Amino acid sequence: MSEKILTEEKNLTQKGQETREKLLWAAEEVFGQKGYYEASIVNIAQEAKVAQGTFYNYFPSKKDIFDELIRLYSRELRSAIKEEMGQAATYEDAQRKGYQAFFNWVRNHRNLYSIVQQAVVVDQELYRWYYAKLANGFLKSLSSGMAAGEFKELDQETVAYCLMSIGQFLGMRWVYWEKQDVPEEAFDAAMTLIFEGLKKQ
Amino acid sequence: MSEKILTEEKNLTQKGQETREKLLWAAEEVFGQKGYYEASIVNIAQEAKVAQGTFYNYFPSKKDIFDELIRLYSRELRSAIKEEMGQAATYEDAQRKGYQAFFNWVRNHRNLYSIVQQAVVVDQELYRWYYAKLANGFLKSLSSGMAAGEFKELDQETVAYCLMSIGQFLGMRWVYWEKQDVPEEAFDAAMTLIFEGLKKQ
Repeated sequence: MSEKILTEEKNLTQKGQETREKLLWAAEEVFGQKGYYEASIVNIAQEAKVAQGTFYNYFPSKKDIFDELIRLYSRELRSAIKEEMGQAATYEDAQRKGYQAFFNWVRNHRNLYSIVQQAVVVDQELYRWYYAKLANGFLKSLSSGMAAGEFKELDQETVAYCLMSIGQFLGMRWVYWEKQDVPEEAFDAAMTLIFEGLKKQ
Repeated sequence: MSEKILTEEKNLTQKGQETREKLLWAAEEVFGQKGYYEASIVNIAQEAKVAQGTFYNYFPSKKDIFDELIRLYSRELRSAIKEEMGQAATYEDAQRKGYQAFFNWVRNHRNLYSIVQQAVVVDQELYRWYYAKLANGFLKSLSSGMAAGEFKELDQETVAYCLMSIGQFLGMRWVYWEKQDVPEEAFDAAMTLIFEGLKKQ
């Protein structure tokens, strides 16, 4: 899905790529504040400080820039998480670092929450693609952690979904709603739940 | 928030209450399929098989019926979960039964997912109220389980959010996307993660 877009980007000059990116982050602002259905291409062009005609040099429609924004979120977020996880000494530490990278990333892209949630109506398949792709990002490290005997052998896809969902809601609760970092106490409680479980031994 | 609505309902005859409910479930269908912004009162009245004028006897606007639908979801879902949890012998069992009640309930209200997600743009405060209220439903049993020594003493609100988020995503993954029950293997993996943790002892 993203391959086509990447090829198109290659045909742009440096300046063209900058304008395209400016339009995408303007769309983030406009979709995040007004919502997809209330937002117009005029709003996005104004926010990006480009002429309306310029918009159409980069994206054929409002739906196209929305789709590309979700794909951009997905790529950037997963790459930020992957980079942090690579620094870890244990598989548990990799998961912890992955969460921190996620929270740091969404702090600068708070509109991510409302925009991804809107995809549930705008484009169901894209919504599903986004979450399946994100869950997938947890799978490799989980599977290595199980093979190495650090983690229990559990249904990997389910565990990946559980881990992703906890990150999603903690980020929503603190970063999106309260506009602050996830407090240490909350982060520690979630990590204890994930790695040690709720039941008293 | 819901008190006002409940009082209004009391002023309706049996037949009036039935019509009101018919409108609400019609709105569920229309908002779920078309999305809030694309849906119209005409669509909802048609789906409910009532005259458009009848709609306005029950709800002043599209936004009002949307709000009331979210509140109705919240009440019915929490009451279904609470009832099941009451049958449990242990606090762990109560949580398991709560999840099953949640999955059973959403199986008959698959539109819940897209409708609640839309609230993020339609009414941010309502969206937050819905999740805070649902998380709250986990708190009492969690707190009793901690007091009874069955559960570890962890930050209760965080654990409640983690449990809620796991239910939300498993339901989305299986009930909403695949239109099927959560498979036993997936449910068991999630329960092991929650109660025993991911780390091999």
